Amino acid sequence: MERPFDEELKTLKEKILEMAAYAEEAIALAVKCLKERQEKYAAEVMRREDIINHLEIEIDELCMKLLALRQPLAADLRLITSAMRIISDLERIGDQAVNIIERAEELLKAPQLKPLIDIPRMAELAQGMLRDAINAFVSGDDRLGKDVCLRDDQVDKLNDQVFRELLTYMIADPATITRAVDLILIGRHLERIADHATNIGEDVIYMTKGKIIKHHCEEEQRA
Amino acid sequence: MERPFDEELKTLKEKILEMAAYAEEAIALAVKCLKERQEKYAAEVMRREDIINHLEIEIDELCMKLLALRQPLAADLRLITSAMRIISDLERIGDQAVNIIERAEELLKAPQLKPLIDIPRMAELAQGMLRDAINAFVSGDDRLGKDVCLRDDQVDKLNDQVFRELLTYMIADPATITRAVDLILIGRHLERIADHATNIGEDVIYMTKGKIIKHHCEEEQRA
Repeated sequence: MERPFDEELKTLKEKILEMAAYAEEAIALAVKCLKERQEKYAAEVMRREDIINHLEIEIDELCMKLLALRQPLAADLRLITSAMRIISDLERIGDQAVNIIERAEELLKAPQLKPLIDIPRMAELAQGMLRDAINAFVSGDDRLGKDVCLRDDQVDKLNDQVFRELLTYMIADPATITRAVDLILIGRHLERIADHATNIGEDVIYMTKGKIIKHHCEEEQRA
Repeated sequence: MERPFDEELKTLKEKILEMAAYAEEAIALAVKCLKERQEKYAAEVMRREDIINHLEIEIDELCMKLLALRQPLAADLRLITSAMRIISDLERIGDQAVNIIERAEELLKAPQLKPLIDIPRMAELAQGMLRDAINAFVSGDDRLGKDVCLRDDQVDKLNDQVFRELLTYMIADPATITRAVDLILIGRHLERIADHATNIGEDVIYMTKGKIIKHHCEEEQRA
């Protein structure tokens, strides 16, 4: 039997899907700004971050309402508390996209240091992780959640590669240092975005399995 | 009249104080390792991060139990959901301390680039913010919470100063680049720690005032 509460949980999931779509677009546009050297995308990122921030408040209020009025138990309770964590990660992804745009705007003031290959690749991987993590949440698919966590390693490795390559540029020509450091920081921001997607993947496992595997996963990744 | 629930909420606050104390120690030890060039502190940081991770699980379970069994409303509900956010920030502070230690261990392999002044100062500021944010949470002091948010700017400014100073080192002598980049990343990690303390300050305002001022604060800071 369908409860009114089920309808509310469906709305909650739809709102999170909407918020995640904006977060994914913000990442894509930030890296597009950098890659195509078109400043016009910066305002697009800022606009999406603003929507993301408003959606966080709206969804948080919905969660608080559901906790207070429906007094959920077990699986429903875990779904709502996971949702509250997930919107916090999505909001931080929006912040990271803004950080990328700020670095990109600096980079656009100088000639291009090098054609960008690994950074757009990192962004694609991070976006894919985010998309799958949210789909895992909506469908309660813990295996997909785990899969997202395992992919974090690829982004970390690419980031190390970006870092090392840019070091060689800086050593060969000190005139490249400011730009190289900006690109290193952008790599870091993308790595952080992948970390947030991983957090969401961990939340999905927690939500479906009812235990925190988060730190276990972290240790697996570190080993 | 004292309810059994009040006793449970008191335990929750005590556990969060304990977790925050470990987080503060982890930051202090990570920067001490770097400043005194003593590798022995690295293991101390790792040990605290492990305790922090276990406390996160324990406190999270306590919060879930309180939500399920006590079905709290209004102020109590906000206290518990704020606690769930706060432990997530504390856990991430532990991760950042580990990131600092990883960079510090790299730096200890080479001669010292320069005496460190601003980075230990950033760490002190961030630790003070964390301490006050947690005290604001425990005592429900929204003015102290707001004060923490406003101090974030000082850490950001110091970080910019660190960044610019290290750029001059790199430009003057490419042999310093690897070490300078490590120090830049440590500055970033400390900035992130201050951001997490700011998140906690915002949570306290939300908890006491019942509204999300977070994004408003962010805009104020950006302006």
